[in-house]
Amino acid sequence: MSPFLAEIIGTAFIIALGDGVVANVVLNQSKGNQGGWIVITMGWAMAVFVGVFCAGQYSGAHLNPAVTIALAVKGSFSWTLVPAYIAAQMLGAMLGALLVWLCYKKHFDATTDAASKLGVFCTIPAIRTPGYNFLTEFIATLVFILAVFYIPKPATGIGSLDALPVAFVVLAIGLSLGGPTGYAINPARDLGPRIMHAILPISGKGSSDWAYAWIPIAGPVAGAVAAALIYNAFLAS
Amino acid sequence: MSPFLAEIIGTAFIIALGDGVVANVVLNQSKGNQGGWIVITMGWAMAVFVGVFCAGQYSGAHLNPAVTIALAVKGSFSWTLVPAYIAAQMLGAMLGALLVWLCYKKHFDATTDAASKLGVFCTIPAIRTPGYNFLTEFIATLVFILAVFYIPKPATGIGSLDALPVAFVVLAIGLSLGGPTGYAINPARDLGPRIMHAILPISGKGSSDWAYAWIPIAGPVAGAVAAALIYNAFLAS
Amino acid sequence: MSPFLAEIIGTAFIIALGDGVVANVVLNQSKGNQGGWIVITMGWAMAVFVGVFCAGQYSGAHLNPAVTIALAVKGSFSWTLVPAYIAAQMLGAMLGALLVWLCYKKHFDATTDAASKLGVFCTIPAIRTPGYNFLTEFIATLVFILAVFYIPKPATGIGSLDALPVAFVVLAIGLSLGGPTGYAINPARDLGPRIMHAILPISGKGSSDWAYAWIPIAGPVAGAVAAALIYNAFLAS
Amino acid sequence: MSPFLAEIIGTAFIIALGDGVVANVVLNQSKGNQGGWIVITMGWAMAVFVGVFCAGQYSGAHLNPAVTIALAVKGSFSWTLVPAYIAAQMLGAMLGALLVWLCYKKHFDATTDAASKLGVFCTIPAIRTPGYNFLTEFIATLVFILAVFYIPKPATGIGSLDALPVAFVVLAIGLSLGGPTGYAINPARDLGPRIMHAILPISGKGSSDWAYAWIPIAGPVAGAVAAALIYNAFLAS
Repeated sequence: MSPFLAEIIGTAFIIALGDGVVANVVLNQSKGNQGGWIVITMGWAMAVFVGVFCAGQYSGAHLNPAVTIALAVKGSFSWTLVPAYIAAQMLGAMLGALLVWLCYKKHFDATTDAASKLGVFCTIPAIRTPGYNFLTEFIATLVFILAVFYIPKPATGIGSLDALPVAFVVLAIGLSLGGPTGYAINPARDLGPRIMHAILPISGKGSSDWAYAWIPIAGPVAGAVAAALIYNAFLAS
Repeated sequence: MSPFLAEIIGTAFIIALGDGVVANVVLNQSKGNQGGWIVITMGWAMAVFVGVFCAGQYSGAHLNPAVTIALAVKGSFSWTLVPAYIAAQMLGAMLGALLVWLCYKKHFDATTDAASKLGVFCTIPAIRTPGYNFLTEFIATLVFILAVFYIPKPATGIGSLDALPVAFVVLAIGLSLGGPTGYAINPARDLGPRIMHAILPISGKGSSDWAYAWIPIAGPVAGAVAAALIYNAFLAS
Repeated sequence: MSPFLAEIIGTAFIIALGDGVVANVVLNQSKGNQGGWIVITMGWAMAVFVGVFCAGQYSGAHLNPAVTIALAVKGSFSWTLVPAYIAAQMLGAMLGALLVWLCYKKHFDATTDAASKLGVFCTIPAIRTPGYNFLTEFIATLVFILAVFYIPKPATGIGSLDALPVAFVVLAIGLSLGGPTGYAINPARDLGPRIMHAILPISGKGSSDWAYAWIPIAGPVAGAVAAALIYNAFLAS
Repeated sequence: MSPFLAEIIGTAFIIALGDGVVANVVLNQSKGNQGGWIVITMGWAMAVFVGVFCAGQYSGAHLNPAVTIALAVKGSFSWTLVPAYIAAQMLGAMLGALLVWLCYKKHFDATTDAASKLGVFCTIPAIRTPGYNFLTEFIATLVFILAVFYIPKPATGIGSLDALPVAFVVLAIGLSLGGPTGYAINPARDLGPRIMHAILPISGKGSSDWAYAWIPIAGPVAGAVAAALIYNAFLAS
């Protein structure tokens, strides 16, 4: 499997399972309705686990433009591959969002609140203040990327469980720093599904909130670049 | 232990522990009553963990006709063994459901709502629309089987923990795509206990809802076949 | 460390952490008050994880008379050691219960409901019907012991994580079959703390409910013997 | 990376993610608001997981003065390094608390209850009784340190997952013994952020509760010393 196909499939798994858990918790009449923050964060963590072990051996399982850019800045990934990786991640994210919409079609119809429907696809800040929302995404991604850089290679591979550490890092970020903005920490995770929200004929959908869309892109990218620079300057040796 | 006995026992573990967690959450006066979606999904995931590590070395731990069929379509399992495996899975599922009924006998008696009693045994859609219910089971099983196909073999076996990845995949599916139909993703998991619901002298039981019974069979089988075909056509190399 | 000391310490860990989580959830003004079934079951699972990895290399980490008896019936453990192991487990359970009482002293004082206080120490059935309560403990322990017998040895030891499978089995049992009786599945877990409840000067304590005390002993022992016999007769080869 | 820098970074990760989960659960309008005890304890456990795998290979990942002192008393760590390690842990804890304040700035503003704001930074007892609060921290840390001493080295390193056992021990302690005092079990975890609470211009903040501050220092230190002495006297061989 080519690395680009792996990035598409891995990201599609993450978004199908990640956006899926949001749908399960926020859409009306779903069996997981009102399941709480532990359901949301465990759902995203297990989504990352599945996406990473599927794509790991083929592409390195970035599945996130912030990871791709951070690795390029750090010097561990070729800049020439960056555009194709990001394109694949965007494609995968859109595909994953499509699957969630199909799975939960009747629950979208049964939900009247337009913000809940948008929230299945992309992040919405708890308190809308662009500066602090940016700062939260910046810090959360900085912590995420630094932690990922420190994951030590196992002496012996233990198969798909090698994908567990990064899933637990995402679980930690979500539980702890996800409260203000819903932790995009991944531009493709937010922009890809937001485009699908704009395109798909979702019944009673409202605005796709494009005014906010730059924050879950710029915050994670800035945090990723900062993490790579800090790592190279102070921590690498 | 023969592979058929292993499939019986493994599936019995899954259903005893999986149907058991539903009983715990939905039946009156149970200590886990109203425990929430995290209890349901963790219960099923740990049920799969136990079933898979028990049967793994003896039968490959399919424990699910959708897995057996997918492996046969993929070319990794002999079609001649398929009927016996499925029969063993059905037997195990029925045995597991019997154990749950015995364990929770007084709580079945203490519950008046017939739908709750049926829900212990088999899946009930949140919003009944055959087409979309089928589609949800199709997509959830497709994602499930594709993810299982991608689980890499560990360089070193770590014993029963080698059963953890598939349990986490089931956790992911349940948290994320389980909202509309209660994620059968396994025909034996639904049909075996449904037969037991029809047979057992459960006090105040209602209909066994046979009108719905084809969906948690056809949806998962179609999803499994699709997953195997997609894998062979695009992803195998 | 002698195996007997290891059994004392390991069981003390399990009960300090296991009875502790019940205290946290049921006693007034505790920070985990009303934390739900996921807190209870995760607390007991992690308690077992800690107890087992501490005692594992010294005693085999039975930490439960039902396990000791099952192994003896199975032929994997000498009957001559059984009395000392069980005595050590009882001692450990009593020590663990003492620690919980000390930790939560002010919360016992702040709680008026005598049943809640008793429930910290030992199991209380949700619906009191000796026959079915016995049956539930019998089945839950049968499933528990059979699953433990099937845990395959890892090709490579991974340290304390080798204790995780049995912790997850206990998590599965608790989530799924723990609803009717609170899953003793361990005579020392119930009797040891019950004796402490009778002895300790707990403010406003009620009866120690000795009428029920035989069930969480006889049920698990019968289930353990049955599991060993079934294993030897049908499953061992 | 020097061991001191590793202790700073590892502790900063723990406090950023640990104090972060408290902010998420207790501050107004946060997406994890009222997420419950399972969110709090899982958040701290995953925080410890991240901190420990980041610092492990560079400093041994104490990240807690109680651990550093216990290892020194036990004879496994040089007393001459103790002051620098503790200083690094304090610095890291203060840095982590700063990040949480920045991330949740608008939610601090949106919260009127001063005790909730203090609770993000440091522990507050559920029932204020210095003697028993000290006792609870003493016992919880004793159990924590003893368990950590018993974590067996894996035959084969499995990378960052080697940090999982200690995270699960912290999960166990939090679920079970964390109810009365909020389980500091780490003087730096409490004192560092408390200093930041006193320093930072948090809107509408109340007292930093210095009267209580000695307990989450003295309790854990006493528990750690006791654990090391007990270990050396009775359990080491």
